[in-house]
Amino acid sequence: MNDLYLKLATSQVGKNIFQALNLPKPTNLQRTPNETLACPSGRVLIAGTKNNFAFKMITKSLNVESIKLLTPKIDNKTSQLIQANNTVEQVDLENLDSQRFKSVVFDASGLKTPEDLNALYQFFHPIVRRIKTNGRIVIVGQQPNDTDTAQQSATHAALNGFTKSLSKEIGKKGATCNLLSLEKGAERHIQPALYFFLTEKSAFITGQVLALQKSTNRIKKIDWQTPLKGKTALVTGAAQGIGKETAKVLARDGACVVCLDIPANKSALKKLANEIGGHSLALDLSSDDAAEQILNTIRSQLGVIDIIVHNAGITRDKTLGNMPAHFWEQVININLTSVSKINQLLLEKQVFSPNARIVCISSISGIAGNFGQTNYACSKAGIAGYVKAMAQHSENNLTINAVAPGFIETSMTSQIPFMTRELGRRMNTLSQGGLALDIAESVSLFCHPSSQALNGNVLRVCGQSIMGA
Amino acid sequence: MNDLYLKLATSQVGKNIFQALNLPKPTNLQRTPNETLACPSGRVLIAGTKNNFAFKMITKSLNVESIKLLTPKIDNKTSQLIQANNTVEQVDLENLDSQRFKSVVFDASGLKTPEDLNALYQFFHPIVRRIKTNGRIVIVGQQPNDTDTAQQSATHAALNGFTKSLSKEIGKKGATCNLLSLEKGAERHIQPALYFFLTEKSAFITGQVLALQKSTNRIKKIDWQTPLKGKTALVTGAAQGIGKETAKVLARDGACVVCLDIPANKSALKKLANEIGGHSLALDLSSDDAAEQILNTIRSQLGVIDIIVHNAGITRDKTLGNMPAHFWEQVININLTSVSKINQLLLEKQVFSPNARIVCISSISGIAGNFGQTNYACSKAGIAGYVKAMAQHSENNLTINAVAPGFIETSMTSQIPFMTRELGRRMNTLSQGGLALDIAESVSLFCHPSSQALNGNVLRVCGQSIMGA
Repeated sequence: MNDLYLKLATSQVGKNIFQALNLPKPTNLQRTPNETLACPSGRVLIAGTKNNFAFKMITKSLNVESIKLLTPKIDNKTSQLIQANNTVEQVDLENLDSQRFKSVVFDASGLKTPEDLNALYQFFHPIVRRIKTNGRIVIVGQQPNDTDTAQQSATHAALNGFTKSLSKEIGKKGATCNLLSLEKGAERHIQPALYFFLTEKSAFITGQVLALQKSTNRIKKIDWQTPLKGKTALVTGAAQGIGKETAKVLARDGACVVCLDIPANKSALKKLANEIGGHSLALDLSSDDAAEQILNTIRSQLGVIDIIVHNAGITRDKTLGNMPAHFWEQVININLTSVSKINQLLLEKQVFSPNARIVCISSISGIAGNFGQTNYACSKAGIAGYVKAMAQHSENNLTINAVAPGFIETSMTSQIPFMTRELGRRMNTLSQGGLALDIAESVSLFCHPSSQALNGNVLRVCGQSIMGA
Repeated sequence: MNDLYLKLATSQVGKNIFQALNLPKPTNLQRTPNETLACPSGRVLIAGTKNNFAFKMITKSLNVESIKLLTPKIDNKTSQLIQANNTVEQVDLENLDSQRFKSVVFDASGLKTPEDLNALYQFFHPIVRRIKTNGRIVIVGQQPNDTDTAQQSATHAALNGFTKSLSKEIGKKGATCNLLSLEKGAERHIQPALYFFLTEKSAFITGQVLALQKSTNRIKKIDWQTPLKGKTALVTGAAQGIGKETAKVLARDGACVVCLDIPANKSALKKLANEIGGHSLALDLSSDDAAEQILNTIRSQLGVIDIIVHNAGITRDKTLGNMPAHFWEQVININLTSVSKINQLLLEKQVFSPNARIVCISSISGIAGNFGQTNYACSKAGIAGYVKAMAQHSENNLTINAVAPGFIETSMTSQIPFMTRELGRRMNTLSQGGLALDIAESVSLFCHPSSQALNGNVLRVCGQSIMGA
């Protein structure tokens, strides 16, 4: 955290600022810990722009029983908007009466020039104040580097600034706004990501961009009830916090989970494995043969591995001048080196199944840097780079992504002194800390068998923390 | 700005917080407004890592009369560091006595694996507390997407987190730490960027990454006194603030500058043009024939154009629900559409000279989004995307880059109410606002005839504002 805030947090004068300021009460975010990612329900307002390539697939994805689709009435031929087909109920944007909206999807994939951005204004201006508490806005654009002209690239890059600003305007209500940035061809695989950002699964994610790559994979019929049924997963650092929640969520979604943590946490680990019908593996990742032991466990207990979640991580905070050498080495070793070593061995020995999933945990610290965390930020920025590099060469439909948590309420963060903690948790658009569950749900999205379009992403799950660089 | 801070800034209780908190007094940043970018002087400590590709060129660049080079003494064969050749004075890192350092360069281009990152610790741990006020650290790495393996890519991405954290640890002293991220082959053209980050020219830039691309251009002898001698430049929005300062700096560096602004600013414009021996062009960029008029001016008054700086920009802030349509249109039109239109016409009509330079002004708002600025952030994110896209297809050695200002002290920002302003200006590592000069110096770097390695960058000049997403 920035020095300024530490100073504010720890100063005598600062002690009562937050109460005195009467900070906005954060909106209670809805979550569904017991449910697997599924189709959104209720009214969903959709519109698109001309020349789009995603609208048909979006409409198809949302054309299900649980959803009541709505689309703007467009009788003005100069409008830049397009509406869904005539079986969909139309709403008059100029005369909305008391209508309010929970879920909104806008397909901007057809934008060609900066002038076309006016479509954003046309669509969102009348409805933005009508977004419900815990509402969801999803904007769909084209990846800027996948476009035909610099103008078009600029136009789609512009969506980024729009999304991040709009999210700040609706955040008070616990509503979110995110951007799906598609390569042409990725629209065929938009469903899991689209559902994710329209449901409670994305409660703590706003102002973010998720990139979807095209894929020649055939589209499988999606088992929305137990998408990970028959899959084997391994989660490192599973004894508590984010790792524990991730193991539980993957098991909830049907996976058989091996829970790994250090030997000192053996009993907690066994308890968890028992609870979720999985396995436990007590192992120190800093030991020389850790990768070998993981390989052996996979071979002997699982046969192949479908999912690995590299969640284990440590902090050893000190300013660099005060940092002992082993603080540096331990953090780089556990957080970065071991992740790469384990993957390398498992890839080499071909124990990943086809369509496998690797998910790493990065951090906002890695993205923005952090005072007293040269070692940690270095390791976590390394993870972000690792995921991007690996994704470019992944074979056999393996995908690799990372989640970058912001301030998450765990037993670790509960140790932080009150004022510092309060600052950390409030410095985002949703004005609150996230839950381990929020990270776990994002991991689960990346693990979904139909998420093959998601590869090389570093998704911030941070309530749009203002910290960025 | 985030709601939380607006609330803090405008609340009754918040009024006296900053005085009461006794916030750290920002360090007075040294600047040299009357001098052209030139060679740094004094003691410069340099070291590198094995397998590097940049150390020779770095050493060569710094092997000039005004510099006293220093390098670590290395007698331990297991050290991961390498030293400069034996004509360079050696310092014992384990026994530094009272030595302090103003300028430090570390070539990390040789790093292959996360374990190699230990070299960062070995070098910086002993010296980080010995960085002088207004000191400079430059780290040189390889572009993560230019490496051979995912491990190596991760290792160089890790430098990003390290740089951004280290900058936060030395920022109190007004010292900066930045990363030059090189494609193999770009080291031949490192000199202007290296000098820039080692001198006062980069006073308000810290924690940032500048990418250098390889180039087959031959290396010209650099005229460090008047690098822009004989060059013609056009600066939009030149009547005041950042544009005015940019026109002055380009003229200082030898260019003949056309100062463009709206007709209402005609007299200020003429005065400036007179002062710097340039021309003035009173023109409303939102008029339909603006690009044509610029073309005609170039043809009639200059012949060809070497440099164009798209600085003109407007804000029309309102939350989206309250925003009138013309607020949207004006901002997108002036800030984004017109930039693209002007460039397109000038490129089409081939009035750019070889080795031309285009510089755009983006904004932290475009990168992070901003409450009440959906239009502005959209336009400025568009500019960032535009620059990246154009850079990929630029011909004839033309380069295009953007500068993204953070909080800059101008007559515009001086209108902001005190507390909000104080928050905006303090929310960065250097705990102060930047000057228009800081933006101008960055523009000048991109305009430098030897800066051909700089292409497609969006350089934040923000004192490492914590705002990022």
